[in-house]
Amino acid sequence: MLNQIDLTRKVTRDVYKLEKEPLEKQLARLQREAIELKIPIIVVFEGWSGSGKGTLINRLILNLDPRRFSVHTINPPTEEERFRPYLWRFWTKTPARGRMTIFDRSWYNELIYNPETKKFSESEWQQRIQEINSFERQLADSGCLILKFFLHISKDEQKRRFDKLLANDATSWRITKTDWKKHRKYDTYIRFTEMLLSKTDSEYAPWRIVEANNRRFAVLKIFKRVVEAVERKVNEVRTAQGAEYSKEETDAGMKDMQVSILSGIDLSKTIERPDYVKQLDIYQDRIRELEHEVYIRRIPIIICYEGWDAAGKGGNIRRITGNLDPRGYDVIPIAAPNDIEKRHHYLWRFWKEIPKAGHIAIFDRTWYGRVMVERVEGFCSAVEWKRAYREINEFEEQLVNYGTVLVKFWLHIDQEEQLQRFQSREKDPDKQWKLTEEDWRNREKWDVYLQAVDEMLFRTSTPQAPWTIIEANSKYFARLKALKTVIDAIEAQLAKK
Amino acid sequence: MLNQIDLTRKVTRDVYKLEKEPLEKQLARLQREAIELKIPIIVVFEGWSGSGKGTLINRLILNLDPRRFSVHTINPPTEEERFRPYLWRFWTKTPARGRMTIFDRSWYNELIYNPETKKFSESEWQQRIQEINSFERQLADSGCLILKFFLHISKDEQKRRFDKLLANDATSWRITKTDWKKHRKYDTYIRFTEMLLSKTDSEYAPWRIVEANNRRFAVLKIFKRVVEAVERKVNEVRTAQGAEYSKEETDAGMKDMQVSILSGIDLSKTIERPDYVKQLDIYQDRIRELEHEVYIRRIPIIICYEGWDAAGKGGNIRRITGNLDPRGYDVIPIAAPNDIEKRHHYLWRFWKEIPKAGHIAIFDRTWYGRVMVERVEGFCSAVEWKRAYREINEFEEQLVNYGTVLVKFWLHIDQEEQLQRFQSREKDPDKQWKLTEEDWRNREKWDVYLQAVDEMLFRTSTPQAPWTIIEANSKYFARLKALKTVIDAIEAQLAKK
Repeated sequence: MLNQIDLTRKVTRDVYKLEKEPLEKQLARLQREAIELKIPIIVVFEGWSGSGKGTLINRLILNLDPRRFSVHTINPPTEEERFRPYLWRFWTKTPARGRMTIFDRSWYNELIYNPETKKFSESEWQQRIQEINSFERQLADSGCLILKFFLHISKDEQKRRFDKLLANDATSWRITKTDWKKHRKYDTYIRFTEMLLSKTDSEYAPWRIVEANNRRFAVLKIFKRVVEAVERKVNEVRTAQGAEYSKEETDAGMKDMQVSILSGIDLSKTIERPDYVKQLDIYQDRIRELEHEVYIRRIPIIICYEGWDAAGKGGNIRRITGNLDPRGYDVIPIAAPNDIEKRHHYLWRFWKEIPKAGHIAIFDRTWYGRVMVERVEGFCSAVEWKRAYREINEFEEQLVNYGTVLVKFWLHIDQEEQLQRFQSREKDPDKQWKLTEEDWRNREKWDVYLQAVDEMLFRTSTPQAPWTIIEANSKYFARLKALKTVIDAIEAQLAKK
Repeated sequence: MLNQIDLTRKVTRDVYKLEKEPLEKQLARLQREAIELKIPIIVVFEGWSGSGKGTLINRLILNLDPRRFSVHTINPPTEEERFRPYLWRFWTKTPARGRMTIFDRSWYNELIYNPETKKFSESEWQQRIQEINSFERQLADSGCLILKFFLHISKDEQKRRFDKLLANDATSWRITKTDWKKHRKYDTYIRFTEMLLSKTDSEYAPWRIVEANNRRFAVLKIFKRVVEAVERKVNEVRTAQGAEYSKEETDAGMKDMQVSILSGIDLSKTIERPDYVKQLDIYQDRIRELEHEVYIRRIPIIICYEGWDAAGKGGNIRRITGNLDPRGYDVIPIAAPNDIEKRHHYLWRFWKEIPKAGHIAIFDRTWYGRVMVERVEGFCSAVEWKRAYREINEFEEQLVNYGTVLVKFWLHIDQEEQLQRFQSREKDPDKQWKLTEEDWRNREKWDVYLQAVDEMLFRTSTPQAPWTIIEANSKYFARLKALKTVIDAIEAQLAKK
């Protein structure tokens, strides 16, 4: 999902000047509060070479009380360090209560570029990941605030920066052969980085992606994230001490700075009807063949549909199933949980519907309701939906490990397209039933939903269970892309065995 | 550690009659409260074949409201079940809020006897363990109370029960060839069972060992454990709802029923002085050779000393180090944490002292203070010490994975021996400094400490980092056993590489 994040975002010089100073003051004040409340804080900076970690760290610490923080730059381990367990040098650098420790690279340093260098076996890597997760959990459990930033720049931007550094004798030494080698393999590294981030993303130490193509954007985003997180922690501690604090979370102006995947999606994609009809036939024939083959080979298939209201889920599903043998598949429509379902863990009703090996289950809406509608409408607590990303990733990992082909669709349309579809539904007596008051209400919350969806796509797009975003302004295009994605996924699994 | 648990414990018929009825009433009342508060409860019964799971479950449910609980007997999976991910059949059986589900064997069923049958590869087993841990954590996070019992009987008792069943035509069919095969390999299975229990023991779903040689003891213990756990959960929920409840935990009479390892230790072991002197020389020569070899091979050694006051830790350590090259080892005395240490995670000060590969670190008291003195004296919260078992196991696993030889000693003496040593210290002007007011105070809390130590030994004796209990009423015997254990552990590690 990293390669789908919108990196074009910018902050103008004027906005930057206007916003930076108040944020610096706020942060300095919050640092004092954290000191008073004895909160230890760890800030981790990871990211591409050339993404500007050093500069950004300097901006961050400029206004902090220098007696109360330390910056550690993590290089390859020395002999002293290699002669001890991996986390030793990080454990010994963890901050005392009331102090802040900033890591310029960290325990993730050696783990990002692994498959190329073959420093680890797969099982050693798994073990290291477990150690890191237990390290962060132990610290968080004892009251430490952990902020992890990944500075993300595009391959083009990285090249631009390398070239600029090279052009200057004073800085050219900073770009090594290894840097260039890694640059050329950017696309390989991005996949391994995704794997690392998704395996170490947790509710107690979540990853924060910083779009760093534009430095001003990156500085403000980091400031806002730190302010937001420290403020929340300070309130949490004060509340635990019995103080009355407003439950409302300050968003520190983060609203416009969230990671966005959807803003980068090109919705103009379309296809002409004659091409559509021709292609549809071919795909539907192929998927029927595959339905038979997965039955023989006992491979379970799960297809998940999520998307905006009126994005065309129903019609899209019908094109998948149109030519299938009905004994081989089930469409499972997911509505609000009923009384019995409410009395169980929210995943229970989905576990019940897991298809038998060899069968296809198509979920019309899914377990992702937890981090969308339930989050936005307050049907569950913040603790619950924040925990749910990990719960869902664990759930899907079990499905995939069992051999399931898992395809997840987000059907994406823009607000104008939705409005047109709503209006045409209103006018058409045969379609009026499809449009409810609730649809209009949800539409008004578009921005809030957008934020939840973007976070969902980022946190639950794991290498083993990635999201596919379907550009759905054109229904024809959307249907063919969905069919093609399912066919490709099944063929890939068949080729494996 | 399972094979060291004291299985001789009994409850007389009179006590049983006296205690059982009130417990049944209490449990029925608590079930009603849990229903009212909508608490879901899972009770898992695992244990040796012949340990009496069926009978014990029947006793437990006799007085419960049958409309509110279900019992599931877990057999090898059917086709329906095999055609879905492993946990599917358990997820679908999880209780609704306010209901209790009892599992006669469970998701652990197929995992206990693995290495013999080779059903899994090592990595598949690890994956299954992760799935189970995430399953239990997800349920616990959503408010479910999980009770896991392991019914433990000795090999002899198992044989006795098999023979009895065989003698009767009505029951002889129940003992299969497989049962006998497993019986013969009891000692193999016990190790794998330990591994499974230690990998799935957590603060949210801890294992409870039930000494089941004596059925009356087992019944009462299970009743008391269930009463205790449900009562705590009920109070927790009521408190979260704003009700004022006493923080004091009812122990439901559990005090005399805790798992005990120490009660089975034979403290009469001793050795004559001439033999001691001769053997000491041999061992001290050998350990000096090994010191050199681990330096060359860069193997780190950590030796942990815990034990009762006046158990002879100091003298014992001096016999280990007596002949060593001082450049190769360090003795690290652990006292109460100082001001700086208190500002960090409690493991921080131990991480700092991790020896460099090739060196020997001897800890005179250790990180186990967390689950002994800090627990007993209330220096940390119950949440903190309960969490610490897992934190410590994770910590030690990292040490061992790095290649460390980790030896953990509990120096055990009885109360009379301690009194004699205290008194002789009092009289000896050269030793008076060793005896403090605190030693006398701790002595008065012997029983509370005993309980904490027994729980510590059980929960942190993992296959990769087992405890060695040193019978220390005889100082000579204790010193030789410690030396021998260290020598054996180092030699085993050297042989590996």
